[in-house]
Amino acid sequence: MDTYRCIVTKREIRTFTDRPVPEEILQQILNAGRMSGSSKNSQPWHFVVVRERGRLRELSGFGRFAQHVASAAAAVCVVLDSPRAFFDAGRCAQNMMLAAWNAGVASCPASMHRAEDARSFLGAPEGHVVATVISFGYPHPKGRGPIERAALRILAGRGRRPLASLASWERYAASRPTPTGI
Amino acid sequence: MDTYRCIVTKREIRTFTDRPVPEEILQQILNAGRMSGSSKNSQPWHFVVVRERGRLRELSGFGRFAQHVASAAAAVCVVLDSPRAFFDAGRCAQNMMLAAWNAGVASCPASMHRAEDARSFLGAPEGHVVATVISFGYPHPKGRGPIERAALRILAGRGRRPLASLASWERYAASRPTPTGI
Repeated sequence: MDTYRCIVTKREIRTFTDRPVPEEILQQILNAGRMSGSSKNSQPWHFVVVRERGRLRELSGFGRFAQHVASAAAAVCVVLDSPRAFFDAGRCAQNMMLAAWNAGVASCPASMHRAEDARSFLGAPEGHVVATVISFGYPHPKGRGPIERAALRILAGRGRRPLASLASWERYAASRPTPTGI
Repeated sequence: MDTYRCIVTKREIRTFTDRPVPEEILQQILNAGRMSGSSKNSQPWHFVVVRERGRLRELSGFGRFAQHVASAAAAVCVVLDSPRAFFDAGRCAQNMMLAAWNAGVASCPASMHRAEDARSFLGAPEGHVVATVISFGYPHPKGRGPIERAALRILAGRGRRPLASLASWERYAASRPTPTGI
């Protein structure tokens, strides 16, 4: 899929079918994360892939809005060796989610509000931090609940502030919400 | 360009030609950032585009490794309304850099170590934070200095830890560097 099309059609999907994500697509997803740029090329991440259903369910309990992890085909946990690397973690996560969407696999990131419990559950060393847990799976056609319908509005350009309200030239200018999109 | 190819070939480029980035590509870059997902769809960002040469030079002085900003065709400054949104800023920045690379435009993000000076220079309100300043421009063919050569090694898969050393299944396993790539 063309990259620009992939970027602007990517939406967070939280309802998945039972179909597993093929190994080669999972490898592409992980490699997309691996190839991400990072500050001074520090690559401050480790990816823990969780696929056992029982463990996915348990993992979903560590975030307030992480229920979707329970039904994912796989979750990729981005574990950082520094709490200062969240910007790089975001770049890395976006690479993985776009590589997935390019292959027809939907995704949604979840914050782990019980961060220490999640770290311990994954067996990551103390001092490390679980920056995000990303659900991956094929989108469920019957799963168009309120969240997915909201996502479809986003896809249509609604649900995002218009560009004119969030971009300035040369100097910051206060947001001027306008009724029209880009 | 296919998204996966765009992701794995994207590299940080710091030497640019004088050729300006066409307005429609800049709009695509900004829209790619705008369409990025964010926590609770908060869209915590504002983009300040800087193109005046004098201002680009001044901006480059606020980061220790931001010299490339001085020669960029344009810089997009991602200004956050919350210092807690760096993960979302990383997703947004990656979207913009991939949309650029998809159109043949190179990029490199820079941290603003003199963050308050950068915020003030851009005219952003107090309490806001400049998460990153991204240089955009066409890569200079004569610009293959040590940094660009390093980037080419990264492109070839070197310069990134092998996947086996940074991914685990179900539970975190300590890094096991191996001599082979993915």
